[in-house]
Amino acid sequence: MNDSSRQVPDLSRFFAPQTVALVGATDDTTRFGGRLLRQMLKFGFGGRILPVNPGRSELQGMRCYATVADLPAAPDHAGIVVPADKVLPVLRECHARGIPFATVFTAGFSETGTPEGRAMQAAITQFARESGMRVMGPNCYGVINYPDHFALTASSVLEPDARRDGSIGVVSQSGGLGGINVMWRAMEAGLRINYATSSGNEADLDAIDFARFMIEADSTEVLLMALEAVRDGAKFARMAERAAELEKPIVVLKLGRTRHGSRAAASHTGAMTGADDIFEAAARQFGVKRVNDSRELYETAIMLRGKRWPRGRRAASLSLSGGNVVQVADVGAQLGLEWSDYTATTQEQLSGLLPGYGKVSNPTDTTSLASGQPELFRRILDIISRDENVDVMVPVFTVPRRTELEQGMQIARESAKPVVLLLTGKCLDDPTLTVERIVADGVPAYRDTVTCLAAVRAAVDYREFLDRFRRQDSYTRPVAADPDAARALFADEGPATLTERASKAVLRCYGLPVTAERLARNAGAAIAHARDIGTPVALKIESPDIAHKSEAGAVRLNLSNAMEIRSAYEEIVAAARRYDAGATINGVLVQQMAPRGIEMMLGVANDPVFGPVVAVALGGIYVEVLRDIAYRVAPIDAAQALAMLHELRAYKLLEGVRGQARSDIAALVDCIVRLSWLAHDLRDAIADIDVNPLLVFERGALAVDALVVLKGKDGRRR
Amino acid sequence: MNDSSRQVPDLSRFFAPQTVALVGATDDTTRFGGRLLRQMLKFGFGGRILPVNPGRSELQGMRCYATVADLPAAPDHAGIVVPADKVLPVLRECHARGIPFATVFTAGFSETGTPEGRAMQAAITQFARESGMRVMGPNCYGVINYPDHFALTASSVLEPDARRDGSIGVVSQSGGLGGINVMWRAMEAGLRINYATSSGNEADLDAIDFARFMIEADSTEVLLMALEAVRDGAKFARMAERAAELEKPIVVLKLGRTRHGSRAAASHTGAMTGADDIFEAAARQFGVKRVNDSRELYETAIMLRGKRWPRGRRAASLSLSGGNVVQVADVGAQLGLEWSDYTATTQEQLSGLLPGYGKVSNPTDTTSLASGQPELFRRILDIISRDENVDVMVPVFTVPRRTELEQGMQIARESAKPVVLLLTGKCLDDPTLTVERIVADGVPAYRDTVTCLAAVRAAVDYREFLDRFRRQDSYTRPVAADPDAARALFADEGPATLTERASKAVLRCYGLPVTAERLARNAGAAIAHARDIGTPVALKIESPDIAHKSEAGAVRLNLSNAMEIRSAYEEIVAAARRYDAGATINGVLVQQMAPRGIEMMLGVANDPVFGPVVAVALGGIYVEVLRDIAYRVAPIDAAQALAMLHELRAYKLLEGVRGQARSDIAALVDCIVRLSWLAHDLRDAIADIDVNPLLVFERGALAVDALVVLKGKDGRRR
Repeated sequence: MNDSSRQVPDLSRFFAPQTVALVGATDDTTRFGGRLLRQMLKFGFGGRILPVNPGRSELQGMRCYATVADLPAAPDHAGIVVPADKVLPVLRECHARGIPFATVFTAGFSETGTPEGRAMQAAITQFARESGMRVMGPNCYGVINYPDHFALTASSVLEPDARRDGSIGVVSQSGGLGGINVMWRAMEAGLRINYATSSGNEADLDAIDFARFMIEADSTEVLLMALEAVRDGAKFARMAERAAELEKPIVVLKLGRTRHGSRAAASHTGAMTGADDIFEAAARQFGVKRVNDSRELYETAIMLRGKRWPRGRRAASLSLSGGNVVQVADVGAQLGLEWSDYTATTQEQLSGLLPGYGKVSNPTDTTSLASGQPELFRRILDIISRDENVDVMVPVFTVPRRTELEQGMQIARESAKPVVLLLTGKCLDDPTLTVERIVADGVPAYRDTVTCLAAVRAAVDYREFLDRFRRQDSYTRPVAADPDAARALFADEGPATLTERASKAVLRCYGLPVTAERLARNAGAAIAHARDIGTPVALKIESPDIAHKSEAGAVRLNLSNAMEIRSAYEEIVAAARRYDAGATINGVLVQQMAPRGIEMMLGVANDPVFGPVVAVALGGIYVEVLRDIAYRVAPIDAAQALAMLHELRAYKLLEGVRGQARSDIAALVDCIVRLSWLAHDLRDAIADIDVNPLLVFERGALAVDALVVLKGKDGRRR
Repeated sequence: MNDSSRQVPDLSRFFAPQTVALVGATDDTTRFGGRLLRQMLKFGFGGRILPVNPGRSELQGMRCYATVADLPAAPDHAGIVVPADKVLPVLRECHARGIPFATVFTAGFSETGTPEGRAMQAAITQFARESGMRVMGPNCYGVINYPDHFALTASSVLEPDARRDGSIGVVSQSGGLGGINVMWRAMEAGLRINYATSSGNEADLDAIDFARFMIEADSTEVLLMALEAVRDGAKFARMAERAAELEKPIVVLKLGRTRHGSRAAASHTGAMTGADDIFEAAARQFGVKRVNDSRELYETAIMLRGKRWPRGRRAASLSLSGGNVVQVADVGAQLGLEWSDYTATTQEQLSGLLPGYGKVSNPTDTTSLASGQPELFRRILDIISRDENVDVMVPVFTVPRRTELEQGMQIARESAKPVVLLLTGKCLDDPTLTVERIVADGVPAYRDTVTCLAAVRAAVDYREFLDRFRRQDSYTRPVAADPDAARALFADEGPATLTERASKAVLRCYGLPVTAERLARNAGAAIAHARDIGTPVALKIESPDIAHKSEAGAVRLNLSNAMEIRSAYEEIVAAARRYDAGATINGVLVQQMAPRGIEMMLGVANDPVFGPVVAVALGGIYVEVLRDIAYRVAPIDAAQALAMLHELRAYKLLEGVRGQARSDIAALVDCIVRLSWLAHDLRDAIADIDVNPLLVFERGALAVDALVVLKGKDGRRR
């Protein structure tokens, strides 16, 4: 969370400078400084370029300066290509000359993995923090601003784009992945870019800063991010929240899913990645669409452009290829789209056009009836697009004529609903009318069924997210949440792991229902406590040294009479002593026996990137076997807690299977919300919490066992 | 199983006829018969064409005949485009004239869903069965044989291919999906096709027949299938088995995964689809790679061509784009590839070429060191390809020079190991050197990481499958399998559902371990049985009318003494009478109480396509909630049964979690194998079996409850 406290920087002069210094400029284009200058000239930068190179007095017809101090004016932005050990001195000169922004291309910093490299990078970070100057890089590929024809980039293969209507922002850390696999391929696919950055090692400015700028830019419609590491989860969340306010979808490729990927990312940019499950959950929580391959970034953007997101999941499709109708039907249903029945009005209108049909089904096989009859196809398309049961249309073409495709494009532009063209073959009479050209003309189009319908689904999801986002209420603390009372329960210097009893007492401070229980220091007290609590009861050893009570044989269940309780007390203490002769024994916990219920597990963990997260899963041994767990960054509201439960395969158990009653899902949701606030409020003190099991009944819920682990003074697990 | 008993037809004259009749030929190319003729001429068919059209005496310079009977010679194959009601008479004429094969393009049969359409199709089927003439279609797109330049197809958009080295077979039911989405796109992607068929309604010859021909053809390297329905599972299995013998990979897109997809398929080709889970399992069992999108068919073929399947999962990759190294590392690990460490020899050789590195990791970030130095890149590639820890190489290029790509291609051709090129951008100095051209030159190449590595994984899987296939022993019946004894246990006219006791007796005939149990007709007998079996025991009602014994309150567990057993007996009988006053009560079952174990479920079901299948899952209520079930077509051997268990997420439970002992997996495997043989041997009599739970212990396993449901005389569930 190194950066959360800083203000959102105003990067206008960084992205669109009037004057730019190039420190290390040369006209040898086999060298980095030469490539930079050549690219800037090729892109037709309209501002003033001030090359700095002590060995030259002139470069490409421009006056060249020996040092930054010699510059005749204070540039907005300096590009720096000097040896690694000269970077910091040059940055200081730039700051002294009044330059607010610098981009450092030089490599040899933390990505080397050496102590020297890391130290040099830390010095840049410290300098930026202290001076207020903002720095991109080091080891980065720089920035491109297509509408303003400004390129300060190490890439020599990018072409300028004379058009100024770019609407897709691209943010990456790696230059090759972001610049080639995403930006270049996106342009090839018919999209136009407005801004692109490759931020490298991120000593100061990071991908989130650049993303934030692009989100605020009016021209941006969709933001694409290819990230190897997210360093600051809170900053990521605020950026995503701002994008949601402005209704600008974000699509992210986040690498480091696997141990191998994380290791490769660490050696590439020197960045550590957090737990991938947590990133996955956070992306979903904050409305960010995550994809698995760099290609999917721009493929998804094709559908997300233009704010034409379907108002629901009800899709319609038609094709004169029956096989394609089957594939569309199948893939759409798998992806959670609904092929709703057409209204009676639509049926009636279509039956006139498609004779011999009974009921016209959706997706619609027009058969070869509509072949070579573009006017008929257009009328069918038009009728279906007006159907009130239809939220989005996906006409499928195999080998269409130009007129057919153009009619599809026209309907896509004019229809009140989103229309996406799927062209699995190619245009017969005009081979230039490709999917790429249709996309370039502003109409969403695809070649492949899965890609197409996955993007449609992403658009549906985005609109659903925005609806939830506008309604959400994540910042209302539940009643009966008492952080002070909870804090009073753990002494500063107490043990790292609270006892079951103390753990539950902490939960109780946030209104979570826990078993009634008391500590007994002798068998007589145990009998008395049992009478107060009500039998049957369970007896468990309480010792800070014995975490696995069952394993120690120090638990007895279902005890009803005094004789049973007395002998259980003595057996438990004896078992505990056998298990660990040196253990401190506080006494024996006398606990209410819970009735049968669905065993769930609630948890709190602290992610290094996102901070406190809550987790819910089926309890008992199934958590670790099935990995059917839902996470959210704390705190959350009831809607988010319910969404977590819906993610679980085990949700059906709560709804009741085989004639069992439905469990009290509202009570479980309330427990999750309360636990999320506990995790949030006490994040400085609590490392993690395990409530396992939390029993959920037909009415109510009850935490039967719990463990709270505290942080040490260093903020780590004690 | 309508076709399993027929011989594999010899389709040589169908695919490569010397003489072809075209019934319904015309020179009006807006009509079907005109398009057929034009295509055949365009493809340069070298044999004799005999047009049949009563209204013409000459067509395109060829003599035209009034009827089939008038033909001067007996053609090998007749293409038929006549009105639907004329199809059968024309087929009869063809047969009379000695024509062995016909392809019927005419639509209007079972795909209409009308009784008339279905009846006309049934008549074709019957005619083919009786006459021995073999018929493709109706409502089909026909056949193309590229090497022999023979096209008998309704598609007007396909181009001939002068080259004769096609090696990819394409089999589909739909013409548009198979012809455009698969075949055309495959050719565009650089692959060459040998044979393609679109078999339509399949009144007689079906996709499996055509697949079988292509598998046997020497030129075929990979077979691609786009199927809406598989009608005969046994025939599919035999075809796949033959492909495995010949080491020819099959990739299949099988639609009808979802209810909506199945419905669309049914209305398109008139075919019903079986359960998708079963097809999925059967494909895995028989070594057929299943994909989700028509695009994946040819994408996978690019890697499966040429029999260069990696001998293991250990991949290596390198790139000068660090971001691409991270993406490759991540995606590969997700797909189950292993990035093994290089050997010391490789490390030593590389450290000379990549100075400043410590240990060189895999995938290897060559950084810009290797940029613009193709010779260096080649040497690095060459060293890694010789590493004995590496089974397959995936060099990644972003914006390579032509020489770099050509070196990659050369190594791919010369290396003893498979080498796959991943080109995420494009060749800078030769834009014609595309991925498609590399593929056309015989080298596997891709543009996208996920696609590329998924294909690599498919190749690894295929080689692993072949290894298992050569070792497998699916046809050895286990000892102590006694079908006659099992049959004797159910009378022909008995109830449809056997009692628990009778069901377990059936299991016992195949050596499955079941609880010791006896039927008691009074409390005294129950006490005596308990003494023989050993206490504690469970008591359960036995009534053919009460399936849900627990729900009826007619089960008592853990009974140890005579008094308990007596009162339990009476309570159970009373509860059963309350539950269903009219129920026939056989008595009360006295049953051995099983110790605690892992609760599994074994099942047998009869799939309409594949016949008897076995299933295994976690027992209890988790089966239906988690849908964590593995299936196989019966019978299977121990290796397949173990593979089923490995597919389950719940497998970890059997291995022992949280310090629990490992369960007796061998005993469970033995139960699955035995049950699969029972299902196979008694498939005419048994509809389904449910063994739930089967307890698995540290040593041994035990079926605690079981239910066998019999088929009626019509072969359906009674």
